[in-house]
Amino acid sequence: MRTPAENAQLALLLEVAGTPKPGNVDRHRDHGDLRFEHFLAGAVGSLDGLELAAGAGPMGEAFETAVEGMADQRGGNTQFGCLLLLVPLVRAAASDALTPDGLRLICANSTVADAAGFYRAFEHVDVAVAEPPAEMEDLDVRRGADAVPTLEARGITLHDVMARSEGDGNAAEWVSGFPRVFREAEAILGDDGPATERGARAFLRLLAEQEDGFVRATSGPAAAREARERAQACLDGEEDPEALAEEFVERGINPGTTADLTCGALFVALERGLPV
Amino acid sequence: MRTPAENAQLALLLEVAGTPKPGNVDRHRDHGDLRFEHFLAGAVGSLDGLELAAGAGPMGEAFETAVEGMADQRGGNTQFGCLLLLVPLVRAAASDALTPDGLRLICANSTVADAAGFYRAFEHVDVAVAEPPAEMEDLDVRRGADAVPTLEARGITLHDVMARSEGDGNAAEWVSGFPRVFREAEAILGDDGPATERGARAFLRLLAEQEDGFVRATSGPAAAREARERAQACLDGEEDPEALAEEFVERGINPGTTADLTCGALFVALERGLPV
Repeated sequence: MRTPAENAQLALLLEVAGTPKPGNVDRHRDHGDLRFEHFLAGAVGSLDGLELAAGAGPMGEAFETAVEGMADQRGGNTQFGCLLLLVPLVRAAASDALTPDGLRLICANSTVADAAGFYRAFEHVDVAVAEPPAEMEDLDVRRGADAVPTLEARGITLHDVMARSEGDGNAAEWVSGFPRVFREAEAILGDDGPATERGARAFLRLLAEQEDGFVRATSGPAAAREARERAQACLDGEEDPEALAEEFVERGINPGTTADLTCGALFVALERGLPV
Repeated sequence: MRTPAENAQLALLLEVAGTPKPGNVDRHRDHGDLRFEHFLAGAVGSLDGLELAAGAGPMGEAFETAVEGMADQRGGNTQFGCLLLLVPLVRAAASDALTPDGLRLICANSTVADAAGFYRAFEHVDVAVAEPPAEMEDLDVRRGADAVPTLEARGITLHDVMARSEGDGNAAEWVSGFPRVFREAEAILGDDGPATERGARAFLRLLAEQEDGFVRATSGPAAAREARERAQACLDGEEDPEALAEEFVERGINPGTTADLTCGALFVALERGLPV
């Protein structure tokens, strides 16, 4: 019987192993110098932080610990966004509150210390983020720990930070009870076949449903729109997802947020009995 | 900085991800109902036992715990043999004794309680083993815990059990300071490229070097000889290992012992600085 932290580690592994997931590292594809093995090492390194998430200490510290452990490999940022979702999800599962309401409460109760942990996590790894608006400059996440005095002076919690992160699909989940994660978890449970294949299908549905913020930040809005439309074409049987996976990897179109959401959904599905 | 137990978990993951490894589940191949995801779940479930191995308690208990956790998935036996090697290797690494002499000492000092843990581990999972000789029948591992009174009455340690397991490649390592594991670890460190590719090449070298006992037990001596010869042909450039991998999976020729040794070698290489 796996603990919530162990299921979270398994969700990280199942997510990256699912194929085809157009544009992402998967069981069949690397991404230049970002390789499958870096995700394996990232999952190994994340566990200590995920176990903290299952405890009673600050979520921000759990997140920072998980990111620090995840980053102990040479590929760079592998699972930052996954961990941002998994930390409150693990906390909810560990306290028998793995529901939208439970997540809303856990996230609403986040503190300034949690926000500080979130900012400190950026010191451990380079995360691709969009330029913040000018009035948010002193809260640019790339400032890392330097932003902590500002957070404290203004009393900004992690929930506040997420609420200000417009256009970020992970932040949108964070502040609204994880609606897409819970819905896809049920779809995964209702699906059949190997868990990795269910995860790959969930990825396509999530990508077709909403433009990926990471693609928008790294490849621009036209690519984000295209990725959404072509994922829909895969679901409609008009495109071959294997061919699309090859093309997106080649063009560097990398729907990272969608992978994060897939990971979150796999975790909830595992907690609810997804057989592996 | 990963702990020895974490490096062991990573070695389990890197081993299964290496491809092509003719006859084994790998990043590109499943084995009927034994799938890649079962190995991922097996690696997740193994960690608690591997952490015990890093402590001071009985190795047999660590092994049984690791096997019980590994078996918490639907694929059956994924990493029993890997864990048999990893438990003393982790213990050695955790006590700064990761050398042939260190392993010889740790294994020589194994106890009757360790042997009992080893037998109990067979209760958690079906392991394919050869028929024991008639005079060994009351020590058939398939008796599980029922054999423990006999072990105790005769004062049989885990080292004794391994010394009696003629023709088993893992047992041969166990009683002789892990010579093949240490030699391949150095070869992996001297190789270059991604860790998973180094592991796949180590697998071919190990398979070409010595007949695989698991193939002998499950597919017969002719298949074991053929697997060794054709692995050598791959090393000599006379066979394509990708094609051989397809063929062996189809024919059910599964060099499991060679995979175990590869995992052990990857662990030692990680402890000695293999970059991931």
